[in-house]
Amino acid sequence: LRDNITLTKVATIIGIDISDDTLITGINTLKDATKSEVSFLHSDKYAKDLETTQAKAVIVNEQSASLVPSTSIALVVDNPYSSMAELSKLFSKELQDCREKAYISDSATVGEGTIILAGAYIGDNAKVGKNSIIHPNVSIYHDCEVGDNVIIHANTTIGSDGFGFAPNVDRSYTKIYQNGNVVVEDDVEIGANCAIDRAVFDSTIIKCGSKLDNLIHIAHNCIIGEHSVITAQNGIAGSTTLGRNAVLGAQSGIAGHLEIAAFTTVAARSGITKSIKEEGKSWAGFQFFEMKTWLKLQAKIARLLK
Amino acid sequence: LRDNITLTKVATIIGIDISDDTLITGINTLKDATKSEVSFLHSDKYAKDLETTQAKAVIVNEQSASLVPSTSIALVVDNPYSSMAELSKLFSKELQDCREKAYISDSATVGEGTIILAGAYIGDNAKVGKNSIIHPNVSIYHDCEVGDNVIIHANTTIGSDGFGFAPNVDRSYTKIYQNGNVVVEDDVEIGANCAIDRAVFDSTIIKCGSKLDNLIHIAHNCIIGEHSVITAQNGIAGSTTLGRNAVLGAQSGIAGHLEIAAFTTVAARSGITKSIKEEGKSWAGFQFFEMKTWLKLQAKIARLLK
Amino acid sequence: LRDNITLTKVATIIGIDISDDTLITGINTLKDATKSEVSFLHSDKYAKDLETTQAKAVIVNEQSASLVPSTSIALVVDNPYSSMAELSKLFSKELQDCREKAYISDSATVGEGTIILAGAYIGDNAKVGKNSIIHPNVSIYHDCEVGDNVIIHANTTIGSDGFGFAPNVDRSYTKIYQNGNVVVEDDVEIGANCAIDRAVFDSTIIKCGSKLDNLIHIAHNCIIGEHSVITAQNGIAGSTTLGRNAVLGAQSGIAGHLEIAAFTTVAARSGITKSIKEEGKSWAGFQFFEMKTWLKLQAKIARLLK
Repeated sequence: LRDNITLTKVATIIGIDISDDTLITGINTLKDATKSEVSFLHSDKYAKDLETTQAKAVIVNEQSASLVPSTSIALVVDNPYSSMAELSKLFSKELQDCREKAYISDSATVGEGTIILAGAYIGDNAKVGKNSIIHPNVSIYHDCEVGDNVIIHANTTIGSDGFGFAPNVDRSYTKIYQNGNVVVEDDVEIGANCAIDRAVFDSTIIKCGSKLDNLIHIAHNCIIGEHSVITAQNGIAGSTTLGRNAVLGAQSGIAGHLEIAAFTTVAARSGITKSIKEEGKSWAGFQFFEMKTWLKLQAKIARLLK
Repeated sequence: LRDNITLTKVATIIGIDISDDTLITGINTLKDATKSEVSFLHSDKYAKDLETTQAKAVIVNEQSASLVPSTSIALVVDNPYSSMAELSKLFSKELQDCREKAYISDSATVGEGTIILAGAYIGDNAKVGKNSIIHPNVSIYHDCEVGDNVIIHANTTIGSDGFGFAPNVDRSYTKIYQNGNVVVEDDVEIGANCAIDRAVFDSTIIKCGSKLDNLIHIAHNCIIGEHSVITAQNGIAGSTTLGRNAVLGAQSGIAGHLEIAAFTTVAARSGITKSIKEEGKSWAGFQFFEMKTWLKLQAKIARLLK
Repeated sequence: LRDNITLTKVATIIGIDISDDTLITGINTLKDATKSEVSFLHSDKYAKDLETTQAKAVIVNEQSASLVPSTSIALVVDNPYSSMAELSKLFSKELQDCREKAYISDSATVGEGTIILAGAYIGDNAKVGKNSIIHPNVSIYHDCEVGDNVIIHANTTIGSDGFGFAPNVDRSYTKIYQNGNVVVEDDVEIGANCAIDRAVFDSTIIKCGSKLDNLIHIAHNCIIGEHSVITAQNGIAGSTTLGRNAVLGAQSGIAGHLEIAAFTTVAARSGITKSIKEEGKSWAGFQFFEMKTWLKLQAKIARLLK
């Protein structure tokens, strides 16, 4: 992808000082790496792939360095997975701004270094910070705010109306106009085809460093704590607050008006219907259970079947 | 947001005749309202917030009027929640039509007062009625019909092909072209990133007054009854008919070719696999249970765990 | 829809030689077909509709031919459902290319006969094959490849970044740039509002003939086998491989790093957490069970409730 990246340059990025002019074309797994690629070992289960790897160099920790075959160069670091992550940027495609093919309201502001791709929509008085990437066909409604170093993937909607209606006597509904906004703080990444609703009053907030996968629904007035990780197809109902560093397994749902303690982990396909007060616990299932209890239940169900 | 809205004007909208030139900037909760905002009390659980509210005026019913502190003006109505809903429109942002940045087929028709935002797509022979709002990057396929006073949020698809394929002897599939359309009747609101498929023959219909949240899948030939409420991430399989005023909790699914009686309520994360004939009942779970039975089951499971 | 289609022409397409100049306007069910439409019988449960059908002609197999009333013409074929599918194309709307209202990178290539609709995005070095249809507001990221005879419905995203982050000591995350791509092989159809992530290294692959419904999440480095059928709102986590002709019921999820044998069927709303080695089996539930076991469990739960 990028031209003229030497192994010396690769090594420098992860804090290693060697001199080797071999051109490196990318990163790959131990199994698939070619002689012009670097690889990495971050888990014992891949150790067997070390013996036969073709990689020019392998990022490893101290303990595993001796396992690197003589045909590869060992690049020894404290945390090979983090070093691989740092290095991955070097081989990424540089995107070109294309805002002349996007819609940016005259009253919107876009910070320096931000890349807006074709088909994106940035509404009235919306603000996008610096060095962010707004992918194709993303729709950011009026008055919403997006921070610095944010990435929003294609076809995601930021600031659609929260789902609020007052029932009428004749069984029809009157719309409650959603006059708040969405605030996406710095260093957030949001996947493709997500929908994050604006608040009825005040703001729906995605706090700094949070990472959202694809096809996620965040309802009005939710607050997602710092550095939370929300995997694909989660839905969070209105006015729920997640503490920092929450981790939600895929296809889970959290009911509305709950408070979820910091450092909470939720297994995939769980339904959370009550607030969680204790920090740092893991939960699973629907009616939900602490993970240990859930596994016990699965075992009892298995016995019930015999 | 809007300029020069006096308390007199606010009161008039909800049927109260007072004279007060205080400028009002918005609606907010009792807790967060400032001295230039109005608030409302619609549930006893917020009554405690009345004592300390800063709101200039509070919309309340007769019984609670005496609880409004002397620092606020009581606006007494029959149904505070409905009055708040009516009022919310006054403070909403006026959207500007931007159809020159959208795609509207020459053979499509768009009614008076309808606002089309940038990036929207309206295909051949599609019809959009009056006073509707088509948000950015909405895609309305050819021959689909959207009524009056409809709101469709960003990145939603109306009229994609239903999922129909005939299996071949060699285990490949032949596409069944979907030559029907989608009809969205008057007063419907559809959230962001939904997909509503066109019928194979005839029409997929969303009847008047229905409200759909985000990320919802409606398959080909479904009929959604009047004033139904479908919350986020629901999926309804092909040829299923919902009676009027159905209410579906989030992340539920309904199998195909079913008939769901009017006024049916379904709990969040349920899977409905049989038709429901009796009107006005509530259901939960998967294999699904009447709500009472489901709660009993949860209790039995809890005991099983002891 | 199309003009001047005679019954003779209709019959020819499904391999029948008759001469009848009646103009045919479409296909419909036995119940709804008018005198200018053809219908079909593909299941005994619709046999009762034969007696009263108004259809000009009915596609039937040998055994049912005698049931067609004298007011309709029997079109006798081996497989009526397949013949109806073949015929459906004749009545479909011809779409017009509108690439001047789409974004196609200068370095992208688009094959002959492919139709690109307004608002679509095709990034740098992306390749789209021949006779494909890219619907409105589809986003195809840089370096992705789409084959021949592929249909991608509106607002779908191909090639968004896989969800990969390395945890840091301070509990923040470092992005792992996703430098692979997505390959969509020939004859694939992908529904509306899907998100298919690019691989971290190498390719996420949707193999030839596979059919995906709406709102589906395919994570990085998945491989979807030939002629698989994935219904709406499924999610497949990273690096999972589906064998050929897998069939996934709606709203199911498959965990990451699994291998699912060819010809596997999964019931709706299942969660698959282990690899499946035996070909051609059916599975259901979460913690998942073979279908027979799951049905037994449902029966036991029903008894538990008594």
